[in-house]
Amino acid sequence: MRPYNKSVDYTSMINISFPDGAVRQFENGITALDIAKSISEGLARKILAANINGEVWDATRPITNDASLKLLTWDDTDGKSTFWHSSAHLMAEAVEAKFPGAKFWVGPAIDKGFYYDIDLGDKKLTEEDLVWLEKKMNELAAQKNRYVRTEKSKKDAVAYFTEKGDEYKLDLLQNLQDGNITFYTQGAFTDLCRGPHIPNTGFIKAIKLTSIAGAYWKGDEKNKQLTRIYGVTFPTQKELDEYLLMLEEAKKRDHRKLGKELGIYTMNDDIGQGLILWMPNGTVIIEELEKLAKQTEEDAGYKRVVTPHIAKENLYLTSGHLPYYADSMFPPMEMDGEKYYLKAMNCPHHHKIFDAEPKSYRDMPYRIAEYGTCYRYEQSGELFGLMRVRCLHMNDAHIYCTKEQFAAEFKAVNDMYLKYFKIFGIDKYVMRLSLHDPEKLGQKYINEPELWKETEELVRNVLIETRVPFVEVKGEGAFYGPKIDVQIWSAIGREFTLATNQVDFAQPRSFNLSFTNQNNESETPLIIHRAPLGTHERFIGFLLEHYAGKFPTWLAPLQVKILPISDKFMNYANEVKKQLRKAGVRVEIDERQEKIGKKIREAELAKIPYMLVIGEKEATENKISIRKQGKGDAGQQTVEEFITNIANEIFERKSAE
Amino acid sequence: MRPYNKSVDYTSMINISFPDGAVRQFENGITALDIAKSISEGLARKILAANINGEVWDATRPITNDASLKLLTWDDTDGKSTFWHSSAHLMAEAVEAKFPGAKFWVGPAIDKGFYYDIDLGDKKLTEEDLVWLEKKMNELAAQKNRYVRTEKSKKDAVAYFTEKGDEYKLDLLQNLQDGNITFYTQGAFTDLCRGPHIPNTGFIKAIKLTSIAGAYWKGDEKNKQLTRIYGVTFPTQKELDEYLLMLEEAKKRDHRKLGKELGIYTMNDDIGQGLILWMPNGTVIIEELEKLAKQTEEDAGYKRVVTPHIAKENLYLTSGHLPYYADSMFPPMEMDGEKYYLKAMNCPHHHKIFDAEPKSYRDMPYRIAEYGTCYRYEQSGELFGLMRVRCLHMNDAHIYCTKEQFAAEFKAVNDMYLKYFKIFGIDKYVMRLSLHDPEKLGQKYINEPELWKETEELVRNVLIETRVPFVEVKGEGAFYGPKIDVQIWSAIGREFTLATNQVDFAQPRSFNLSFTNQNNESETPLIIHRAPLGTHERFIGFLLEHYAGKFPTWLAPLQVKILPISDKFMNYANEVKKQLRKAGVRVEIDERQEKIGKKIREAELAKIPYMLVIGEKEATENKISIRKQGKGDAGQQTVEEFITNIANEIFERKSAE
Repeated sequence: MRPYNKSVDYTSMINISFPDGAVRQFENGITALDIAKSISEGLARKILAANINGEVWDATRPITNDASLKLLTWDDTDGKSTFWHSSAHLMAEAVEAKFPGAKFWVGPAIDKGFYYDIDLGDKKLTEEDLVWLEKKMNELAAQKNRYVRTEKSKKDAVAYFTEKGDEYKLDLLQNLQDGNITFYTQGAFTDLCRGPHIPNTGFIKAIKLTSIAGAYWKGDEKNKQLTRIYGVTFPTQKELDEYLLMLEEAKKRDHRKLGKELGIYTMNDDIGQGLILWMPNGTVIIEELEKLAKQTEEDAGYKRVVTPHIAKENLYLTSGHLPYYADSMFPPMEMDGEKYYLKAMNCPHHHKIFDAEPKSYRDMPYRIAEYGTCYRYEQSGELFGLMRVRCLHMNDAHIYCTKEQFAAEFKAVNDMYLKYFKIFGIDKYVMRLSLHDPEKLGQKYINEPELWKETEELVRNVLIETRVPFVEVKGEGAFYGPKIDVQIWSAIGREFTLATNQVDFAQPRSFNLSFTNQNNESETPLIIHRAPLGTHERFIGFLLEHYAGKFPTWLAPLQVKILPISDKFMNYANEVKKQLRKAGVRVEIDERQEKIGKKIREAELAKIPYMLVIGEKEATENKISIRKQGKGDAGQQTVEEFITNIANEIFERKSAE
Repeated sequence: MRPYNKSVDYTSMINISFPDGAVRQFENGITALDIAKSISEGLARKILAANINGEVWDATRPITNDASLKLLTWDDTDGKSTFWHSSAHLMAEAVEAKFPGAKFWVGPAIDKGFYYDIDLGDKKLTEEDLVWLEKKMNELAAQKNRYVRTEKSKKDAVAYFTEKGDEYKLDLLQNLQDGNITFYTQGAFTDLCRGPHIPNTGFIKAIKLTSIAGAYWKGDEKNKQLTRIYGVTFPTQKELDEYLLMLEEAKKRDHRKLGKELGIYTMNDDIGQGLILWMPNGTVIIEELEKLAKQTEEDAGYKRVVTPHIAKENLYLTSGHLPYYADSMFPPMEMDGEKYYLKAMNCPHHHKIFDAEPKSYRDMPYRIAEYGTCYRYEQSGELFGLMRVRCLHMNDAHIYCTKEQFAAEFKAVNDMYLKYFKIFGIDKYVMRLSLHDPEKLGQKYINEPELWKETEELVRNVLIETRVPFVEVKGEGAFYGPKIDVQIWSAIGREFTLATNQVDFAQPRSFNLSFTNQNNESETPLIIHRAPLGTHERFIGFLLEHYAGKFPTWLAPLQVKILPISDKFMNYANEVKKQLRKAGVRVEIDERQEKIGKKIREAELAKIPYMLVIGEKEATENKISIRKQGKGDAGQQTVEEFITNIANEIFERKSAE
């Protein structure tokens, strides 16, 4: 049943174009849902909303002009957020049922789920209330109530909420223009809402209200504190179960918890917030990552440099970081009548090294790398473990190249990313190609339309050639050129933004960098900024979750623990240790006079990849009994066999099986 | 002829004790020079001054009480500085002869030689004047004029310089007490002077006036600028010749010159003074030094850590660096209502890592190492190449140990120094053991008389056992314990202060550090601060001079340059390069179409250890023709032979032959 609208000429036809380029004619006033049904009923059951000419609409809203159409399902970000926004309305309906007179502020979709901020008067919500609300939501969802959109005059809208006595919605209405006001109603609940929403509540098959928090109205602590209820919903129970399992797993894998348990890092109030002290175990991982980066970069023709952590104000004026980026930098130190700043990035320092000696085409591409330590000011409330810090060790490098060399260099960087993903077992990743917006050339983007077009095309081609999954985003490029942000997913499916790969045509000019080309002319190079392993802080935080602290042998701070059954076998244990150390293996002996069972349990807890049990039989036969972390007994080997195997495992940087 | 003094009873006898403990009787009023003559005329000819009861005296001054005596020769620091101070007077005599009416301010001995600050009116000294003065000094020296000491009343002294019209000496006299004023006269020159001086000008056999500079009176630029003449003198011409040769060699080996030529480091005004940018070649050396340190420290049971470069004010208040050391620190950054400082040393950060987890006797000794980057404020006028900088990468570590473990730990550190000296071919070194002064306990030194005695004794024993040359200096220990400063000499005989090894009983207390001992009691550890390789900055500066830029193969930024005779042999050159790289050798090909002679010359200039010449014969026979840096043709080898040899040379960190 199609909603009736007086202003539409239902006798005319409109042209609908599809993402694949196809164009089909439909009756004027048709809805996206009807179009989906015309394709297949199965498809229609999945349609949550529709993208009409770049705007997200209700799938049930009549289309009254020629339009481009993309049907949105759970697989689309906009589909998901529509689903979660509708779920917030469903929760509000349940709340109103339980607490008549509740007043509602805002209820948006968020990264994973939704919330609603509600004024419940003096009522404090309990866990039992959440259970009741969940149950009620399930009942209401089963009713498959439609989300009905109604356009309202401002006068009618104000009258409605005045009668209801909801000062929060009245406050929202103040900022809305007459003619742009819509209400949505499902079941017994009506809300002031811009939409869009899913066709009906029946799409919501699995519901979990996850937590209750306090939230000051408009985020201002002078205002009343409202009750914020967080929830998450899914189109199937299976997806909810998987999500809850992932949350539980993420809690176990919390990098802050593992970081402390495994002696990876610590922080200290006397040093300062967001400043990581890397403990010996964390430092082993840092050293292994740097070794990997150095080998990889050396093979790829990079040279290394070391630069100081500070520079004068003028450097950052030239680079453009001051004053625009000043809020993210540490405050200056005033010395000898000059302002010195901690560096927030390594690029200007590297440019000065490029510029220290004259360059010719023979020197190009000139690639310099540094695990540079940068300092960035983050609000103390935003600091979070290793993920948001104030001191970052960055896997940085800059490639200065000619235009002709650019595509090959950019591809080589991309290949390096893929090589790293393989080593770390990162199976799911997306490269987000951020482009310029031609309308903002000269304002948000350096005014080089041809260079933009050219490099964007080159970058796109590299991505297509290397067959990596990527999405394009218009208007999110850096000031100085297109960039790729790399998003990766951990073993339990959590998303991390890792690293960046950027093209730069601006800084080579502002720093007046040049090389002499083959025609003996001075030419400005292009720069590629790249940091495939991101920062030690974020990457090790990611790895802690990804591996649940069970690092593959090459990364494990301690690789082997020798567990003698009694003191009698200490000589043999020391002999085995010596041989392993000689082969470059990180090894310790548990010398305590404890039962072997206890030694094994503690080595398991410390997540050490290999435990070598040594007793009478082993000492006599010059063998060892091997236990693998989490896998138990792995049989006996001679010391030589074991060394050959583990040395190979480490050299190859094998993932844990 | 003995000077006559009415107040001395020449009929009595005094006891003179010698450094070896012997005590002999002499007539009251005898001089050190007479005592030397009583031993041998040969000895007497070498005596420059004498140490009487800890004070340096003229060797010709009568001794009128029992005394301890040490005869001072050119081999003693105090002997040398007496010699140079007397040379300053000799120079003044020559100046007065050339420029009557010249007025004299001060003329001290310095590290190597002496200077005198003189008011010459409007006269500007020329190189020719210096030649004249040198000649005159030689004449006056040949006269063997005695340096005669006279005690003066303040009144007489003022009268003398008033008549002479020398306002500078009158200014000096203002601050002198009557009864403590002495004049020294040699030949025609008389000076207000505390002494001591050498017996006569005839000891000065070789003279070089090295430079002229301007110097504001009392170092204040509002005052008149005086003329400063620098000079150096020796007891033999041979020593002067050697010294001048060394200076010339030092100029060639100037680390700033070599640092630029070899692409080791650069600086940049936009970054800031004293802040080193390590270029790719310098970074290779840094990486090799860190690799050496990490291997050495790992073998010695150290763990590694990484700490941030800043901390809050409170940390440095606890450590005692603020306010006492504030002048040597960078100014603070004010952020979130707190002051943050760049760290001037790593110790407080390391203490926080020690303290991050509870420690027991099983964890001791706990050794943590870091090539930590520190920032120290040096006056811009004192900055000098790599030697005096504001950002230092320090080969730092801290050892937390029990009292019982201390001696073994201190010895292990000492052994590490010796191991490094061997690797770098440092044949001449002295350890300077700085002790406390019992009279200043509780003021300059932490008030722990027993701990001082105990650890000083332990440290001394270690030095004796390891048979390293050392000197003891009372009253120069750190606040918190005895320390050893290490002085080394480069291949051309220049002295560098390299590194430090310190005992600390203060910081463990102020940081409240503890471990649980075997009796289950809380105990405070001792700390050893140590930095055997000093800082990258100073050590690489030293190595540049020491090796004259010709680094041994393991340290050389580029180890091998392949020089194909023509393009025809590029395939073979690339094959050789591939095999060398696989063996971990740093290698490049000179691909230019230049004559082989030019290629060789440029590779020699770049101080590359090995040049491999490749032509028809080599390519056919699968061989290479080897040239060694500075040594020319070194015959032919197969590629395999060469790789085996060079890989071994690098692995063993062999010195250049």
